[in-house]
Amino acid sequence: MSSAKTAANAQWGGRFATAPADIMQRINASIGFDRALWRQDIAGSRAHAAMLSHVGIISQADEAAIAAGLDQIAADIEAGTFPFDAALEDIHMNIEARLTERVGDAGGRLHTARSRNDQVATDVRLWVRDAIDGLQAQITDLMRALAMRAAEHAATPMPGFTHLQTAQPVTFGHHLLAYVEMLSRDRGRLADARRRLNESPLGSAALAGTSFPIDRDMTAAALGFDRPTANSLDAVSDRDFALEYLAAAAIAATHLSRFAEEMVIWCSTPYGFISLSDAFTTGSSIMPQKRNPDAAELVRAKTGRITGALVALLTVMKGLPLAYAKDMQEDKEPVFETTASLSLALAATAGMVRDLQPDAARLRQAGRQPGAGARG
Amino acid sequence: MSSAKTAANAQWGGRFATAPADIMQRINASIGFDRALWRQDIAGSRAHAAMLSHVGIISQADEAAIAAGLDQIAADIEAGTFPFDAALEDIHMNIEARLTERVGDAGGRLHTARSRNDQVATDVRLWVRDAIDGLQAQITDLMRALAMRAAEHAATPMPGFTHLQTAQPVTFGHHLLAYVEMLSRDRGRLADARRRLNESPLGSAALAGTSFPIDRDMTAAALGFDRPTANSLDAVSDRDFALEYLAAAAIAATHLSRFAEEMVIWCSTPYGFISLSDAFTTGSSIMPQKRNPDAAELVRAKTGRITGALVALLTVMKGLPLAYAKDMQEDKEPVFETTASLSLALAATAGMVRDLQPDAARLRQAGRQPGAGARG
Amino acid sequence: MSSAKTAANAQWGGRFATAPADIMQRINASIGFDRALWRQDIAGSRAHAAMLSHVGIISQADEAAIAAGLDQIAADIEAGTFPFDAALEDIHMNIEARLTERVGDAGGRLHTARSRNDQVATDVRLWVRDAIDGLQAQITDLMRALAMRAAEHAATPMPGFTHLQTAQPVTFGHHLLAYVEMLSRDRGRLADARRRLNESPLGSAALAGTSFPIDRDMTAAALGFDRPTANSLDAVSDRDFALEYLAAAAIAATHLSRFAEEMVIWCSTPYGFISLSDAFTTGSSIMPQKRNPDAAELVRAKTGRITGALVALLTVMKGLPLAYAKDMQEDKEPVFETTASLSLALAATAGMVRDLQPDAARLRQAGRQPGAGARG
Amino acid sequence: MSSAKTAANAQWGGRFATAPADIMQRINASIGFDRALWRQDIAGSRAHAAMLSHVGIISQADEAAIAAGLDQIAADIEAGTFPFDAALEDIHMNIEARLTERVGDAGGRLHTARSRNDQVATDVRLWVRDAIDGLQAQITDLMRALAMRAAEHAATPMPGFTHLQTAQPVTFGHHLLAYVEMLSRDRGRLADARRRLNESPLGSAALAGTSFPIDRDMTAAALGFDRPTANSLDAVSDRDFALEYLAAAAIAATHLSRFAEEMVIWCSTPYGFISLSDAFTTGSSIMPQKRNPDAAELVRAKTGRITGALVALLTVMKGLPLAYAKDMQEDKEPVFETTASLSLALAATAGMVRDLQPDAARLRQAGRQPGAGARG
Repeated sequence: MSSAKTAANAQWGGRFATAPADIMQRINASIGFDRALWRQDIAGSRAHAAMLSHVGIISQADEAAIAAGLDQIAADIEAGTFPFDAALEDIHMNIEARLTERVGDAGGRLHTARSRNDQVATDVRLWVRDAIDGLQAQITDLMRALAMRAAEHAATPMPGFTHLQTAQPVTFGHHLLAYVEMLSRDRGRLADARRRLNESPLGSAALAGTSFPIDRDMTAAALGFDRPTANSLDAVSDRDFALEYLAAAAIAATHLSRFAEEMVIWCSTPYGFISLSDAFTTGSSIMPQKRNPDAAELVRAKTGRITGALVALLTVMKGLPLAYAKDMQEDKEPVFETTASLSLALAATAGMVRDLQPDAARLRQAGRQPGAGARG
Repeated sequence: MSSAKTAANAQWGGRFATAPADIMQRINASIGFDRALWRQDIAGSRAHAAMLSHVGIISQADEAAIAAGLDQIAADIEAGTFPFDAALEDIHMNIEARLTERVGDAGGRLHTARSRNDQVATDVRLWVRDAIDGLQAQITDLMRALAMRAAEHAATPMPGFTHLQTAQPVTFGHHLLAYVEMLSRDRGRLADARRRLNESPLGSAALAGTSFPIDRDMTAAALGFDRPTANSLDAVSDRDFALEYLAAAAIAATHLSRFAEEMVIWCSTPYGFISLSDAFTTGSSIMPQKRNPDAAELVRAKTGRITGALVALLTVMKGLPLAYAKDMQEDKEPVFETTASLSLALAATAGMVRDLQPDAARLRQAGRQPGAGARG
Repeated sequence: MSSAKTAANAQWGGRFATAPADIMQRINASIGFDRALWRQDIAGSRAHAAMLSHVGIISQADEAAIAAGLDQIAADIEAGTFPFDAALEDIHMNIEARLTERVGDAGGRLHTARSRNDQVATDVRLWVRDAIDGLQAQITDLMRALAMRAAEHAATPMPGFTHLQTAQPVTFGHHLLAYVEMLSRDRGRLADARRRLNESPLGSAALAGTSFPIDRDMTAAALGFDRPTANSLDAVSDRDFALEYLAAAAIAATHLSRFAEEMVIWCSTPYGFISLSDAFTTGSSIMPQKRNPDAAELVRAKTGRITGALVALLTVMKGLPLAYAKDMQEDKEPVFETTASLSLALAATAGMVRDLQPDAARLRQAGRQPGAGARG
Repeated sequence: MSSAKTAANAQWGGRFATAPADIMQRINASIGFDRALWRQDIAGSRAHAAMLSHVGIISQADEAAIAAGLDQIAADIEAGTFPFDAALEDIHMNIEARLTERVGDAGGRLHTARSRNDQVATDVRLWVRDAIDGLQAQITDLMRALAMRAAEHAATPMPGFTHLQTAQPVTFGHHLLAYVEMLSRDRGRLADARRRLNESPLGSAALAGTSFPIDRDMTAAALGFDRPTANSLDAVSDRDFALEYLAAAAIAATHLSRFAEEMVIWCSTPYGFISLSDAFTTGSSIMPQKRNPDAAELVRAKTGRITGALVALLTVMKGLPLAYAKDMQEDKEPVFETTASLSLALAATAGMVRDLQPDAARLRQAGRQPGAGARG
């Protein structure tokens, strides 16, 4: 195989670049996924420019030009007209290059007293913080849905199970409220993670801070951080905020997988405890009476992807010397995919909770039956 | 929060659908990623149609129409003009619907004696088989690159390390050949996985086979399978071929992470054992003499994503009752991402092996120095 | 192979029981590891007995007999003279059976209004709480050790690295303090986990509470819990307190692995940044000058076991229906092993921090050298 | 906290050594678990001594003394009278020290042309090979049990499920045979792992081979290896044989977890498809009709520990430079625990397969019922 061409594998559609420049661009460029950080990147640059101007490192005119340029870039990205370029590697350089194109030298001065290392650490923290806020709203929504159905069925008897054997009678409402407890702890874990990550890395620069007379408190406050980080080496090389977020997500996903499993079992013919409408099931043309609880199964499965993302980042961070290493670029996809998966699983679960219809008669009857499995 | 609208979170760009139909389409549709299976899906359909015609279930005219329609669809997908539709959920239904549009009722008859369950099991097996073939070529390429550099440096002395302490002299060639051994086992593992997966699920239908007089040997042979699978329940619910593939990939990625770690350490100033050209390093405007081994760091990090993918699918499959469950739709992204990551890591490693320049003088000198760390 | 005998495999020392009673005892009995819960089990029983007597469910004489019996059992276990019996399955039944032997029917009455499900949930929470307290003391100790060495070397220059390339000068003290930050977050995570788990499951009974007029606040207070748990189904089936603990431990272990990696590299001959004394290194008879940083390597490796324990319990809990399932017995070994591994890794790291001697001259010189890896 | 005493934590029974010598012994010594390798270690030493004598490096008298000494040590260990000593760190040094005590200088000469690195690599390979042989016998036994019950119920109708919804009728025998297929692939994976690991590291010494005129083919043949390893650096630093073994075990455990889940569901009251006797269930004094399928639940849970062990070792090996590093000592516990867990899970599953009684009437009736979950 030649070392200087692209070898294609016709069958699986895979092809691997063998020209060094192609390989390097493909493994190194992150713009394919880190464009998700654009809002955070622009917010960080706005705050940085305002601070640079405030302390006199750049002029007010520069700041105004930068702010206007960033507004235009944000509008372009929002409108889908921004020309992302893989040769510019990542979202930070794409925005910075475009800014300089638009506003000239002022754009270049934005990078004063800042490095890509503290910039990306700031962006990812802001992104995770926003993701947490979004997920908290969804968890709260799911808790409300559960509580409403629990109130409705506060007196609907159902069998309580241990070992999936009928044990003692409980109510359908009591059972649903167990999940409200779990989700309440999930919310607490995410809130703790948010509080702990809420420090601003800006000013840490590449790893050793900067000799420019910057005001770290000002950028921290502008971005809603509680304070600047205390140690510059730590600030650019820490990804445990992402690990803590992924761990909280994995535990939450595990809770959802338990509820999803119960929905699958409860929908099963021999149980028939609940039914789900067409909205959350799929049918079969040859078995028209069959209603497959696809959404519940997919919620159950999402815990795999989220646990996998946690393991991925723990593996990446294992044994990395300080300070920044390029390995850390691999923090983003686990974080993005986990957020999308958990958000979707929460939405689907809340939808199913609102949709499900318990069969009170079967629940009552099942609570009366002796355990099976006994053999004379 | 209303249950019937899409709630947007302006900051992180996330938004979660709360209308049941939106949620269900988003969680259920796989066309966003399973379009990667299009070649395999079309090959499987061609083989199935030829068999149906051969045994007389469909007419030769139908088969000809189907084959022509599939050719046209393949051309459209290749050209990027195929209109993928998320409402049609997956690649199988997208292709089938388009086929029926083009060739009328014959398209509908293609689904005779086949279910989406055996169809997807076939497609994924074929995809993994193709991925293995592609990776085997890349592993072989990397082994050749290592062997060539080893031959070149068969007599270049370097310190052998244990505990990263200088232990006994070896040669640079000897060291590189250790990786040839590891890769040779990786190749063996992938070959074993390929052999074991090479059975055709077609004919298993939804889970219980079909009463149509199909010829399973014919479709198996047409698709390059060694034989049809033996048990229909197993055939549609087994994903251990994907697990075995992911496990082999994770071990290979671990090997690459070890070599990458060595490159990072060897490029470090105090070692200076090797240098990499600009092709595989990045520079810094403020530190022009600095050459960061980004490619090596990213190869080292990729083991995280691949290990995570293995954990993801093991988690998905844990405790799933037979036969098909929708959870198994979550097999694809781990498989696709692992293939892309490992392929890229192999290409980058081969590139670096060809590119690296050992500093023979420093290697020789380092082999002579006593171990550090001793303290009188 | 007969199904009614024990088949031995002479080579690997393995043997597998094939008599049902042997198999069942081996897979079911947990006394081999859950005896570690004895202190917590006795504390829980004392609190429960005092409450039962207080509300009049048992007599004061019974309570006194139970308390005396438990004291004696505690003394026997402490002295190593307690006759653990695998036929009694677990620590709870071992203690209860012994108590009844010693104090007669009063012992049996201890089980009133309590089930093994809420008992074990209480014991494990207490154990994790105690483990957290122990680890917090160790983390604090390590932070102090780092801070003391940092103070000592506040002005010792060393090269700051990114990508393991010399980037900008920092001080040895600054570098050590980065770990103080990481450990401070680890301490915060463990404190949050402790606060969240600190609710008493007692009174949840098997899954549905009890009709006895118990006082849950009294037992909660006696055991140092902040309050009783709110939902009985959740209380007996929740293990996310263990998951959160394991996740916090995995992140902490990852931090330690980074420091350990740095010690290994810094001790390496070409670096020679630090030396470790004989206390934390091992030698070699044939290479007397060689000092292997075994302790650092083992600390680095422990992150594997701890990450594995987290994955183990996430896998166990995935998809488990409510309420108690025997699967949850598999929570203990991951928790115990993680605690032992992390405690040992913290102790070894603190020891090495106190022991290490930086070579100020080499650190200074290395900070002056240009990055390697550049090629003409 | 003083750095020179042992600090005890009275509550959780934990205590952490703070005297360097205590810490080092505790983290470094592996005799607590690697004594499991004693048979393999003695076999390896016998083969090595015979070879040394054959090529004339030691005398025949020395060899005879060594062989007699090793016989005695084997007898002592078997009898439980061998004095294991933690100060001697590991099984290799325990045996070697004892041998020298018994047979004098000849014992010391056994270490000629061998290092602990190639010795431990050999021992672990032999142990894994023996473990595979034991597990293969158990898998075969389970396959036989399934096949026998399948033959017995070749015509017993039962509902086939997809999405846990009744789909199409199958037979109980057909369902059981799906697991025979899975286990057959598990057997294949273990056989491939055995074949691939079956090379002898002896002669690789610390990392660079030896200048003594040893006969590597002779030791390889004596220990049943197919050939010596090809590269000495690889031989002492490779642990992918253990990773491959753990991966095969994790896939097998996942299969068992699926069967266990089915047993739990099938034993559940609403299903009542099968019953298990008292041999594999536990009862409840207050609910005498209840039979908890504890053994099935524990089999289901064991997949957690085994998946965790795989992740543990993948994490350990990630990014380790060549050749031997002490991190690799952490390979043993994952391997030992996986073997014990999988062996027990296989035995319990085989026992349950032989024990279970299908309720043919309920199976037949369930096959006739329409899917639940439909809602008008």
